[in-house]
Amino acid sequence: MGHRPSLTMDFPIMANFRATLAYDGTDFFGWQTQPHRRTVQETVEKVISSVTQEKPVRCVASGRTDTGVHALGQVIHFHSNTRLALPILRRAIQAMLPEDVSLLDLQSVPDDFDANRHALRKRYRYVIQDGSVPDLFQRRYSHHCRYSLDVAAMARAGGCLVGTHDFRCFETEWPNRASSVRTIYHLTVNRFGDWIWIEVEANGFLYNMVRAITGTLINIGRGYWPESYMEQLLTSGDRDKAGPTAPARGLFLVRVTYA
Amino acid sequence: MGHRPSLTMDFPIMANFRATLAYDGTDFFGWQTQPHRRTVQETVEKVISSVTQEKPVRCVASGRTDTGVHALGQVIHFHSNTRLALPILRRAIQAMLPEDVSLLDLQSVPDDFDANRHALRKRYRYVIQDGSVPDLFQRRYSHHCRYSLDVAAMARAGGCLVGTHDFRCFETEWPNRASSVRTIYHLTVNRFGDWIWIEVEANGFLYNMVRAITGTLINIGRGYWPESYMEQLLTSGDRDKAGPTAPARGLFLVRVTYA
Repeated sequence: MGHRPSLTMDFPIMANFRATLAYDGTDFFGWQTQPHRRTVQETVEKVISSVTQEKPVRCVASGRTDTGVHALGQVIHFHSNTRLALPILRRAIQAMLPEDVSLLDLQSVPDDFDANRHALRKRYRYVIQDGSVPDLFQRRYSHHCRYSLDVAAMARAGGCLVGTHDFRCFETEWPNRASSVRTIYHLTVNRFGDWIWIEVEANGFLYNMVRAITGTLINIGRGYWPESYMEQLLTSGDRDKAGPTAPARGLFLVRVTYA
Repeated sequence: MGHRPSLTMDFPIMANFRATLAYDGTDFFGWQTQPHRRTVQETVEKVISSVTQEKPVRCVASGRTDTGVHALGQVIHFHSNTRLALPILRRAIQAMLPEDVSLLDLQSVPDDFDANRHALRKRYRYVIQDGSVPDLFQRRYSHHCRYSLDVAAMARAGGCLVGTHDFRCFETEWPNRASSVRTIYHLTVNRFGDWIWIEVEANGFLYNMVRAITGTLINIGRGYWPESYMEQLLTSGDRDKAGPTAPARGLFLVRVTYA
C-alpha cells in the first residue's frame, strides 16, 4: 500500500518574482546559458539558488541579450519557495552578485506573470562617440566612430522607420522568426557634445535589428548614403543593402514595458 | 690606427617631446615599470620605441600613479631622434597604444623640459557615488560609499587644508620625503546627483595623500567625525588619526601645470 499525502499537509507555495537587472555585458557571453561560457543567466540563477537554497532556479528574461550587450533594465521572472522577506531576499541577492550585475528592483508578482511573453515594449539605446580621440573611460560602453556624424540627417532618416513595417532588411539570418513585422513606437537620434544616442522603442526586435539600424544610420550620418536610402532599404527588404552590424559594446537594453 | 668620425658627419639630433596621456588604471600596476607587471610606463615606452625604431626610449612622467589610479592628463617627456613629423608620430603612437591608454597631445619642447621636475601644480579628482545601488557602469572609475554623505560638511572641513601646511598626517609611510610641507591651492567638494567630486590642486602630493584626505572627508561626511576633526588632525600630524586610504579606482590625475 502506498502513502498518500495528508490533505492538511503544508505544501510549499511557489511564489513568482519579478526582478530588474542592470549588467555590463563586456565580460559575459550574453544572457542565455551555454556550456563553458560566463553568461548572465547562469550567474544570476546560481546566486538566487544559493540565497534561496533551491536547485535549480530558472530565470526567464524579457529576451536574450547578445555577447557584449549591456542592460540598464532587463526584466526577468523566477519562481521560488523561499520564505525570506522581500527586502532580505533583495539585499542577499544584490550582495552575492558579481560587480558587473546589479539587482535594481525585486517584486512579488502574480503567478502567471511571464517576463518574456508579457513584454509589450522594449527600449534600446545605442551610444556612439564621434570625437577625434576615443574616450577611453567609455570604451566598454560606446562605439567610437572615426567620422563626424550629421545627427539631423540620421534623425530624419530614422523617422521613416517609425510605425508598423516588415523589418527583414535589418534581420541577421532571416528568416528565423515567423514574422519580421514589428512596430517601432519611437526612434530618436540626439547629440550631447561628442556623444550620440540612438533610442529605439518597439513591440519587439529581430535578431541584431538595433545594431543593423545603427550601422545604416552611421553610413547616412557620415554622408556615405543619402537620407532617402533608408526608405529604399526598408522597401527592398534586403539585409545585404543595410549597413554593417554596429559593435555590441554600444548597445543597451534600457527598459521593458508590461501592461 | 683607429677611425675617427668625420667632422661633417651628420649626427642625429635628439629632440625632446612632451606628451599628454589619459589612461584607465584598472588593469595597470601603476605608472612605473616593474618586473613581470603591466605598467603604463613600459606600455608607452614600448609603443614609442616601436614607432621611432629606437631602443630604449625612456619616458619620464610628472609623477608616478599607483596601481588602479587613472589619468585624464598625465604629462610625460621623452627624447627621440625620430624624423617623423609630429602629426605622423602622434597618429602612429595613438594607433599602437592599447585601448586603455590614449595620447591626447604631443608637442615638441625645448631640450631641457622635464615633466617631473618642472611640474608646478597637479590636480587630482576623487569620484564617489553614494546612491543606494552602485552604478555598475562606473564601478571601475568611482568608489561606492554605502553612507549618504553631507557634502557641505565635507567642503567646510576640506577648506582648512587649503594653504601651506605640513601634511604628514596624510602621508603613508612617513617619512619618505625630505619634507611633508605642501601647498594646496584648491580643494572643493561638489555633488552632482549621487556623484561627489573631490578636487585637490597642490604644488605636490605626498604618497597616498589624496586618498587619505578622501577617507577622512568620507568619515566627516557620514557623520562619524565632526567637521572640526580635520583641523585637529592636521595639527596632530598623526597618520593613525586620519581616515582610511580610499580605494584607487576613484582617483584621477586630472592635469599637470607647467610654467
